[in-house]
Amino acid sequence: MYRESIKVLDCTIRDGGLVNKHQFTHEFVKRSYEGVSKAGVDYFEIGYINSPNLFSTSEYGPWKFCAQADIRKVTDGVENGAKISVMADVGRVEMDALLPADQSAYHMVRVASYIKGVDKAIALANRFHDLGYETCINLMALSRDQGSEMDEAFAQVEKESHAKAIYLVDSFGSMYQEDIEKLVARARQYIKTKELGFHGHNNQQLAFSNTIESIIHGVNYLDATIYGMGRAAGNCTLELLLGFLKNPKFDIRPVLDLIATDYLDLRKTMEWGYIIPHMIAGQLNQHPQDALDVRKTDDRDAYRRFYERMVSSGMD
Amino acid sequence: MYRESIKVLDCTIRDGGLVNKHQFTHEFVKRSYEGVSKAGVDYFEIGYINSPNLFSTSEYGPWKFCAQADIRKVTDGVENGAKISVMADVGRVEMDALLPADQSAYHMVRVASYIKGVDKAIALANRFHDLGYETCINLMALSRDQGSEMDEAFAQVEKESHAKAIYLVDSFGSMYQEDIEKLVARARQYIKTKELGFHGHNNQQLAFSNTIESIIHGVNYLDATIYGMGRAAGNCTLELLLGFLKNPKFDIRPVLDLIATDYLDLRKTMEWGYIIPHMIAGQLNQHPQDALDVRKTDDRDAYRRFYERMVSSGMD
Repeated sequence: MYRESIKVLDCTIRDGGLVNKHQFTHEFVKRSYEGVSKAGVDYFEIGYINSPNLFSTSEYGPWKFCAQADIRKVTDGVENGAKISVMADVGRVEMDALLPADQSAYHMVRVASYIKGVDKAIALANRFHDLGYETCINLMALSRDQGSEMDEAFAQVEKESHAKAIYLVDSFGSMYQEDIEKLVARARQYIKTKELGFHGHNNQQLAFSNTIESIIHGVNYLDATIYGMGRAAGNCTLELLLGFLKNPKFDIRPVLDLIATDYLDLRKTMEWGYIIPHMIAGQLNQHPQDALDVRKTDDRDAYRRFYERMVSSGMD
Repeated sequence: MYRESIKVLDCTIRDGGLVNKHQFTHEFVKRSYEGVSKAGVDYFEIGYINSPNLFSTSEYGPWKFCAQADIRKVTDGVENGAKISVMADVGRVEMDALLPADQSAYHMVRVASYIKGVDKAIALANRFHDLGYETCINLMALSRDQGSEMDEAFAQVEKESHAKAIYLVDSFGSMYQEDIEKLVARARQYIKTKELGFHGHNNQQLAFSNTIESIIHGVNYLDATIYGMGRAAGNCTLELLLGFLKNPKFDIRPVLDLIATDYLDLRKTMEWGYIIPHMIAGQLNQHPQDALDVRKTDDRDAYRRFYERMVSSGMD
């Protein structure tokens, strides 16, 4: 698959940060940034820009806040580096402290939102647009929010936002390729002047194939993570995606190196991937929190009990 | 997805046996058989029927030979058990020793063959058919053998064999969903009176999604294994497939139990799954042997070196 307009965004540190409270060292992040940049990836999403007044800076690592100085420690001296992206949550950004884009260490801001919060997400993204940033809106949990509000949200982001791309997010890792086809077609009825993006979760080992399916149907902004690292079951792996995309600007080898030098070891202390409670949550279209919780208890491998509890809670 | 005509075949012990020289204990196999049967799976493939004159019975376990008495130790006393399937390789079966199907502990024989060996595979399968067995022909390595011989083989199995189903096998785990769509359409041009089957490998985390894709295009015989256990990267996981198929006869819970009681522990001593050299082999459409070999050496995680070697060998 070769399509010039495809953009790959690595969100390893941002999505993976949800697993370890964003406690990656600057050296670790810098190695990942260098490798991802050498691999030809377009964007490197490094974390969230939460106000340090809202969360403890001793409990959480630097990538929950993404201070300009922290980002520059990572990017300084890296040639031809990928553009830096950060994620912004409605109500958690210190708006007065923001720099205009031309003075900032990051280029793009993605605002994540459920369908029901789309008004505020558009307003926030547009504030960043006015400061000169590239912006995206990531619409989450679309396997659940399938009502007419979804159509309204699609129409609204098209009309009111300046986002470059609207991401369709399978937060629960529960969608099959037919669902992706239908979802992209539904979004395209409304979103005609912006790019579409896709962000999958790998609960059912479908994050990569769903990403391919989205590409087939014209989606151009693609999220992936090194070795699939990310919350719960993790994400589409970057090494699979780069291997599929035939654009010669991509080189899988620096990603293979990062897995060997950093991510194999990380996997020994942080959990992500094909883990049965996460598979069950995906199959039943449930939020990952219950599975994350059960993995911290002695019942972590009591699969039948977890399954029966999830089936019941789905019927509430 | 509910389709009455879909048949699920669990080949955990047969494909997984390639990893440990078929050295599963009778008790282990019996527990798997009971669980898979309770899950409502149609067939349980237990091993190969190789002649004990051709391979060492001390080096290899019972499931490389599948003596009638060994199978009966597993199936005796199990109510409503799945039908037993065995695999036969051309030239390795002791034909004179075969029982007619109505006296045999197994019901179905699947003959595995490369495209170029299809004549002999048809002849062997038909011998079993004449003895009263259900038969299938599994056409291997179809990501490689894409020449006009493939069309001839499809025409020939349709015309000359009595097989119930012709399996399309992605031996290298290298096919994407578009490849599956095209392959099934190509097979259907010739194979009009028999069922089609699909057997995937999970090198690129696509075994499940490719199985779904095959279902969408009318394939009814589906292979899967418990927790994905199988050679190299393993196979489509049974628990994912049963969760996707909405036929109420399937119950995922006994499979979840087997993972908790047996397969989590097994994974600690046997290697299968998403492992980077297997991913590379799949991405480059290569036979799994080189990746299996490198995993036994000190270079097991020297991914870049392995990648560059595989790229070069693909250009030979």
